[in-house]
Amino acid sequence: VSCVDVGIDVGGTKILAVRLEGLEVADTERATTPHDPARPAGEPTADSALVAIDALVARAGAIRADAVVGIGLPGMVARGGELVFSPNLPSASGADLTSSLRVRAPELRVVCENDADCAVLAEHHLGAARGEDDVIMVTLGTGIGGGIISEGRLLRGRSGFAGEIGHMVIDANGPRCPCGSRGCWERYASGAGLARLALEAAHAGRLPTIVARRHGDAYAVRGEDVTAAAEEGLEEAVALMDEFGWWLAVGLANLAAIFDTGVFVIGGGLGRPSTHVLPAVERHLRELVEGGERRGSIRVVPSELGERAGAIGAALVARERLR
Amino acid sequence: VSCVDVGIDVGGTKILAVRLEGLEVADTERATTPHDPARPAGEPTADSALVAIDALVARAGAIRADAVVGIGLPGMVARGGELVFSPNLPSASGADLTSSLRVRAPELRVVCENDADCAVLAEHHLGAARGEDDVIMVTLGTGIGGGIISEGRLLRGRSGFAGEIGHMVIDANGPRCPCGSRGCWERYASGAGLARLALEAAHAGRLPTIVARRHGDAYAVRGEDVTAAAEEGLEEAVALMDEFGWWLAVGLANLAAIFDTGVFVIGGGLGRPSTHVLPAVERHLRELVEGGERRGSIRVVPSELGERAGAIGAALVARERLR
Repeated sequence: VSCVDVGIDVGGTKILAVRLEGLEVADTERATTPHDPARPAGEPTADSALVAIDALVARAGAIRADAVVGIGLPGMVARGGELVFSPNLPSASGADLTSSLRVRAPELRVVCENDADCAVLAEHHLGAARGEDDVIMVTLGTGIGGGIISEGRLLRGRSGFAGEIGHMVIDANGPRCPCGSRGCWERYASGAGLARLALEAAHAGRLPTIVARRHGDAYAVRGEDVTAAAEEGLEEAVALMDEFGWWLAVGLANLAAIFDTGVFVIGGGLGRPSTHVLPAVERHLRELVEGGERRGSIRVVPSELGERAGAIGAALVARERLR
Repeated sequence: VSCVDVGIDVGGTKILAVRLEGLEVADTERATTPHDPARPAGEPTADSALVAIDALVARAGAIRADAVVGIGLPGMVARGGELVFSPNLPSASGADLTSSLRVRAPELRVVCENDADCAVLAEHHLGAARGEDDVIMVTLGTGIGGGIISEGRLLRGRSGFAGEIGHMVIDANGPRCPCGSRGCWERYASGAGLARLALEAAHAGRLPTIVARRHGDAYAVRGEDVTAAAEEGLEEAVALMDEFGWWLAVGLANLAAIFDTGVFVIGGGLGRPSTHVLPAVERHLRELVEGGERRGSIRVVPSELGERAGAIGAALVARERLR
């Protein structure tokens, strides 16, 4: 057996692990993300990750020493691998999974990276952004994650924290964000943002059918009600998704002005339900970005690798940095 | 005579040309930026640039064929050198100075680049950002220009347009911007932004002393009135400059989250008058940026090269790309 390439994507609710052979997913393993506030940050996560790694390694007919493991984490991951801040995964915020796994399995080679950084590498190598040198991956989940490839290279920044695009302020007097600021992009264009827009629209009387389906309780309206109704073609839901798409375009236009990006790849849990608004997002983006008509076309495309992008990319990170 | 390195910074009102020897400015030449709407875009600029080049080359005891010339331009400069869009230098918007100069002086080697991209190279090589790998230069003039060095390399983007940070939207429902969008950063934190903040404050009764100096005419209050009064220590002016500094910090915090930047260099015409608010900007930035206390310190420092940064950097671009 030669090297076994394993990638793990740790999300707020689930863990997905893959084994890559070349650029193909040869095997997968799933688990629920453990949360135990009584234990040190990241320890339950390290346990679950090791179970998944061992299963994939064993089924490959290999041993731990053959494996290189990449782990994608939601938050600010330092170049040394520590997850220094993770508003959306507090049970692992501050964790050093590389060290935790080294204690459990010293023969294992492990590297940690931000999950959206992993995802953009995957889309760049084998997904929606093949052949593109200037790509930004935008993962729409509870928050907004970002992975940036500029002139063919993953942008990491001084300490490894580059790509925290969800906390770009786009509305300086807007709603409070848990990060401490106001009007961050992810207060509008993420899952949490859609939920907020939906609640406001419900209370403003702009979602009468959806509120009626919730037995008249505007407080009960969820983002999922809107995405599902928009897919059915319900006009009030389509209108709200257009508003959501406009907010998405505001942030993309900022990034396009800053990076001169050619393609944005939209992924994460809200990526698929957002697919049908992406043509409108492209149009808004062209209107919003400085010198829009003088730029080449800027594409906004859905992720091709879907929920597996992060895990595949984590395996690619391991392959690049550990082998 | 070996190579003669010439750099030219073309601004809205003046042209500054330098000749570099090593990393020292050996000679300079100045002109007023010509504007002649009756002639094709950039033609008057090419004439003036050639006069300056010839003067520097002659005083160096050289001929045109010995010279490599870099030209820094305010706006979106394509990789091929064309100034495709320049809201603040409309008389040269659309100009291809490389071609215009080739017609006039075929033996001259010329390269064009965005002026703030030139400035950041200069500050990185021999100014305020020596030894830093992750630097953003912010030039505060009529608008806001940006030059970005990420992991030691100048960020250019797909077509060369990267770094248009002034048109990052930070207040989606804010005032209209000539670029077509709303609430762009340069509507707040540039010379034009300060002028707007000053007029609003004057009309709101927050600048009584300055309005009195303008004989009670709130419409007559200018940004320069505020910067001058703030340097004297006039409290109402200091308060407005603090507000200006907060808006400056909002954009810097966005860039710090996106790039994980270590140092921001503040230059341009409003750079020097802003120097005394930079410590406050650093504090606001730390409060605004996600995970602020978990990051290394982020420095906000004044340009060391001042008004010569762009011209020096243009010469460095010529040296790097043409020699």
